[in-house]
Amino acid sequence: MPTHKGHLVIIGGAEDRTGDKRVLAKVLELSGGSDAHMVVIPTASMMGPEVEKVYHAAFMALGAKKVTTLHINDRLMANDPAVADIVLNATGIFMTGGDQSRLAAILGGSEVGKAMHRAYKRRGACVAGTSAGASAISEHMVASGRKGVHPKKGMLNLVPGLGLLGRVIIDQHFSQRHRLGRLLSIVAQNPFLLGVGIDEYTAIVVTPDTELGVIGAGAVTIVDARQMDYTNVNEAKKGAILAMTNIQLHVLPAGFKFHIESRVPQGADELAVTVPAALAGLVEALVETT
Amino acid sequence: MPTHKGHLVIIGGAEDRTGDKRVLAKVLELSGGSDAHMVVIPTASMMGPEVEKVYHAAFMALGAKKVTTLHINDRLMANDPAVADIVLNATGIFMTGGDQSRLAAILGGSEVGKAMHRAYKRRGACVAGTSAGASAISEHMVASGRKGVHPKKGMLNLVPGLGLLGRVIIDQHFSQRHRLGRLLSIVAQNPFLLGVGIDEYTAIVVTPDTELGVIGAGAVTIVDARQMDYTNVNEAKKGAILAMTNIQLHVLPAGFKFHIESRVPQGADELAVTVPAALAGLVEALVETT
Repeated sequence: MPTHKGHLVIIGGAEDRTGDKRVLAKVLELSGGSDAHMVVIPTASMMGPEVEKVYHAAFMALGAKKVTTLHINDRLMANDPAVADIVLNATGIFMTGGDQSRLAAILGGSEVGKAMHRAYKRRGACVAGTSAGASAISEHMVASGRKGVHPKKGMLNLVPGLGLLGRVIIDQHFSQRHRLGRLLSIVAQNPFLLGVGIDEYTAIVVTPDTELGVIGAGAVTIVDARQMDYTNVNEAKKGAILAMTNIQLHVLPAGFKFHIESRVPQGADELAVTVPAALAGLVEALVETT
Repeated sequence: MPTHKGHLVIIGGAEDRTGDKRVLAKVLELSGGSDAHMVVIPTASMMGPEVEKVYHAAFMALGAKKVTTLHINDRLMANDPAVADIVLNATGIFMTGGDQSRLAAILGGSEVGKAMHRAYKRRGACVAGTSAGASAISEHMVASGRKGVHPKKGMLNLVPGLGLLGRVIIDQHFSQRHRLGRLLSIVAQNPFLLGVGIDEYTAIVVTPDTELGVIGAGAVTIVDARQMDYTNVNEAKKGAILAMTNIQLHVLPAGFKFHIESRVPQGADELAVTVPAALAGLVEALVETT
């Protein structure tokens, strides 16, 4: 039984804003389509007015009823009841890219922050974010870090995010900025968190029963360390590559789904009947002969 | 019961040749130390004379009894019984970097190729290779491919290697050249192969009972698709990102071991008693409260 009503659309950055806008079209659809009142929050960005133009034009072109941009640049405004009321009554809330630390520091625990939770959970509003706006959606958030395929001790800083999605850590610009290592280093620290790396031009749609579906041109990389049977994360020196064994890795292009609570790729069971049966046979045969 | 006697040292490239030479010291140690007769084969390289100088100096400085460089640049020489005899009687055989396709095309199935197998399996010689020389050691070899974190359809070309190590596909310069994607794409095609990605400045030592141990400054990344329950590798279009679910990933820095046949990280069981027990408790607690 879902504990909330709304959808999340978490975008890995660089989504198309002027062409076919497929990812933004999904945001608008889940925000009510032609009945949508979109609230755009460019708090992460230092280029608010430019960002306002781009997203206002994009959502209006896609057929939104109304688009309001709220330039919330300090906690005074974030705690303004009139501003919070606009957020509470939105059918879609969109957080732009920039620096996710600004979203946490300005919106975290504020009236606007609370209104986002209420709109999403009780009223069924869609909350979407791209790049920094994507990172900020989860409970734990990457504030900064280094790139590379290997997990290393102390390669990133986590801060509390806006908390709209639990049990998950989001990383964006994933394959483009080589962020597998830092995602692994987070799940090494606590396998409770599921690592979700989202490419540019790509997004996950999270349903009220916490199933995520992949849309867009790239892929989503999921790392699950629940079955990790060893890591030296607690003993390793700063900068050292971390040992990690038995990490589960999933690569999911558009169309694939994954259930966050059960950590099971959706659809794989049905598909498994055809493809891996053949593969399994092949594996057996080769073990015999090689 | 091991079916052969020798060791393999498979190096991810860029090993130190003039400083403390830790990786090459291990090659020499497994080749007989001060009794070693090293045969260097720079066939992969187009810079044979320069390469000869570097490795001759390195192995002599480390205390080898004798170093012979064989500039085998065509199949005529590769089939010369006198040349093959030198290889057969070596205690250590070292293949340099360059283009692994040259090693396959010039040495594959030749008298020198056979002598390498005999020296390694029957006489207990150490066979080592760096970069291209590393790739060529296994039965299946990456000839060329593209970089990136995601597996893609048709992103690389496999050719038969020299076949000294079965059940494994080696990739080198691994984290430096972003080769996780291509390693995944290979194991997607047939999970029988274990994917082993070796960083620069890093090597695996393979014992006669096919346990690999990691030495050097970087890490070894292992991908195991035996439990993969879905991939669309057969249906995907050329260039498309492949869906793959339930891939096991291991990151192993220096000192860690992995058994190739059982596919189990060695030492993890003992270590697991302390570290993951605490983690498991933490996971339970957080599932309850979040």
